[in-house]
Amino acid sequence: KKRKNKKANLWAGVDIGGTKIHTVIGKTKGRVLARARMKTRAEEGFTAVLGRVEDCLDEACELAGVQRGDLAGVGVGAPSPITAEGVAVNAPNMGWENVPLVKKLSKRLGLSVVAENDCNLGTFGEYRFGAGRGCDSLMGLFVGTGLGGGIVLNGKMVRGANRLAAEVGHMIVAAKGRECGCGHLGCLEAYASKRGMGDFLRRVLEQEGRESILRQEPELDFGNVRSGVLAQALAAGDAVVSEALAEMCWYLGLGIANLVTLLGPKKIVLGGGVMEALGGELLGTIRESMAQHVFPAASADDVELELSALGDDAVALGALAYCRESFRSG
Amino acid sequence: KKRKNKKANLWAGVDIGGTKIHTVIGKTKGRVLARARMKTRAEEGFTAVLGRVEDCLDEACELAGVQRGDLAGVGVGAPSPITAEGVAVNAPNMGWENVPLVKKLSKRLGLSVVAENDCNLGTFGEYRFGAGRGCDSLMGLFVGTGLGGGIVLNGKMVRGANRLAAEVGHMIVAAKGRECGCGHLGCLEAYASKRGMGDFLRRVLEQEGRESILRQEPELDFGNVRSGVLAQALAAGDAVVSEALAEMCWYLGLGIANLVTLLGPKKIVLGGGVMEALGGELLGTIRESMAQHVFPAASADDVELELSALGDDAVALGALAYCRESFRSG
Repeated sequence: KKRKNKKANLWAGVDIGGTKIHTVIGKTKGRVLARARMKTRAEEGFTAVLGRVEDCLDEACELAGVQRGDLAGVGVGAPSPITAEGVAVNAPNMGWENVPLVKKLSKRLGLSVVAENDCNLGTFGEYRFGAGRGCDSLMGLFVGTGLGGGIVLNGKMVRGANRLAAEVGHMIVAAKGRECGCGHLGCLEAYASKRGMGDFLRRVLEQEGRESILRQEPELDFGNVRSGVLAQALAAGDAVVSEALAEMCWYLGLGIANLVTLLGPKKIVLGGGVMEALGGELLGTIRESMAQHVFPAASADDVELELSALGDDAVALGALAYCRESFRSG
Repeated sequence: KKRKNKKANLWAGVDIGGTKIHTVIGKTKGRVLARARMKTRAEEGFTAVLGRVEDCLDEACELAGVQRGDLAGVGVGAPSPITAEGVAVNAPNMGWENVPLVKKLSKRLGLSVVAENDCNLGTFGEYRFGAGRGCDSLMGLFVGTGLGGGIVLNGKMVRGANRLAAEVGHMIVAAKGRECGCGHLGCLEAYASKRGMGDFLRRVLEQEGRESILRQEPELDFGNVRSGVLAQALAAGDAVVSEALAEMCWYLGLGIANLVTLLGPKKIVLGGGVMEALGGELLGTIRESMAQHVFPAASADDVELELSALGDDAVALGALAYCRESFRSG
């Protein structure tokens, strides 16, 4: 009697982002059979996005040479808190508020679906298949326009009683400090993200009138300079960009130190667009600031700081792993 | 065949503090049979303190009407990080550095001993028998001379890979801010503790020369005003003390908000001398600041803020529970 069928070993992970949908089809141990990608076009509304998720999934299945019905389940990551019932509570980038993501998508696909916050899943993906493998307490920080994060402790995602936990970017590190997009003052994100860097750039370029290669950028959006542009400016020795990044790293290291002081993880994984473009250059500065700010009795040497190993696949693979584990234990 | 003997159901918990040793003898479910208390006299050295722990334990046994040999094990809390091998790494209040607490004490007592950081155990005690009962994610903050803390997630104490975790008082909340005893700038403890309040009092009383009932105190130690004195001054409408406490509560609420943003606990338990003396008066202000600083998507209403239910017994009862569970699962 053959107990394992094909189905029990095939899963999909879908990363629904503000600009793109990224899907992987994979086996239980994270081996990726195929990937597919599509624009999100969030402005077309929730139902249209679900349609594009379906298309993206079918394309990935085709590339993998499997049928949709062969999948044991689909894990989905989205930039929103997700309730236990699979409702995406609030995703400003998507224009979503309290949308029944899991219910609608599983009906549409005819498959079992689980959903979870994307940064939680990105961290979980790194834990299962990436830089955090075998390391049962780790934190992930994803530096992009904003600053997202995830926490794995004792091999479990920390989601909090309110399902809103691990909002690392909204830990206040500078009371009465710089205003954050969330309305509070002094959140880590207000310093350690592209949006945070925007404040610095606006001040030195607009108010202080300093010179910078950035001035050559057409229609520069201070709060969302492309990571590639930052990398080029840094490589060219641009002082303003170098200072902006140094400030970002100083705060990022301080925030990481707080996580170490509170939770004592073995490893911190850094990902997101800024880290993908500049991680190699910035890691040393971030580590220095972490060592400078961590509770003195703790040795910063005991904490590994690593760049994401999964890159663009992190959320989708985390979703795949989470889905597999949800249905296995459930 | 009688499977349970008396021994399997009797435990001791010992709280070794900077000034006193507090011992409880209790049953598995936390029912206290007897308590005993002794001065620590830490200045007499590690071995002398162990002798006093032994005396205190024997006194508690006598009061409980049991023999030392009836105990299934002894749990010990100490103001130090404790390694997996039971070594107390660093306890400035005790003058201890890398002392083999568990090894020496279990040899001396002829009993199984486990040891753990006192604030972790205080939180665990509240979780098992006190204000946090049945609430499998909670944090404890103990406000005294300093600010200690503990974290329970999914029913487990968070100790970190480095056994130094949950140093809530050394989370940096005001980058480049007030100097903390640990040498860093802007730690929560530098604002939300008696030592932190000292900075405020020194400024307004010494530098600004303001009037306050505190001036009547002989040999006032700004950084360690007795909690009872603070309570009296507040009751008498002393503006300086009221402002000092308001600042403390503002930062404490901000720090608690950070914990909620990161970990989403169901409950926060507040203990320690300052909370025992003034908790009722301060809780509302702390809650207000928490609500003001928590990540906006999270509702502060979902988090309960409560005063410690166990008071002086918290650490000893946490030690008892931890000991029982260590030996049961081991």
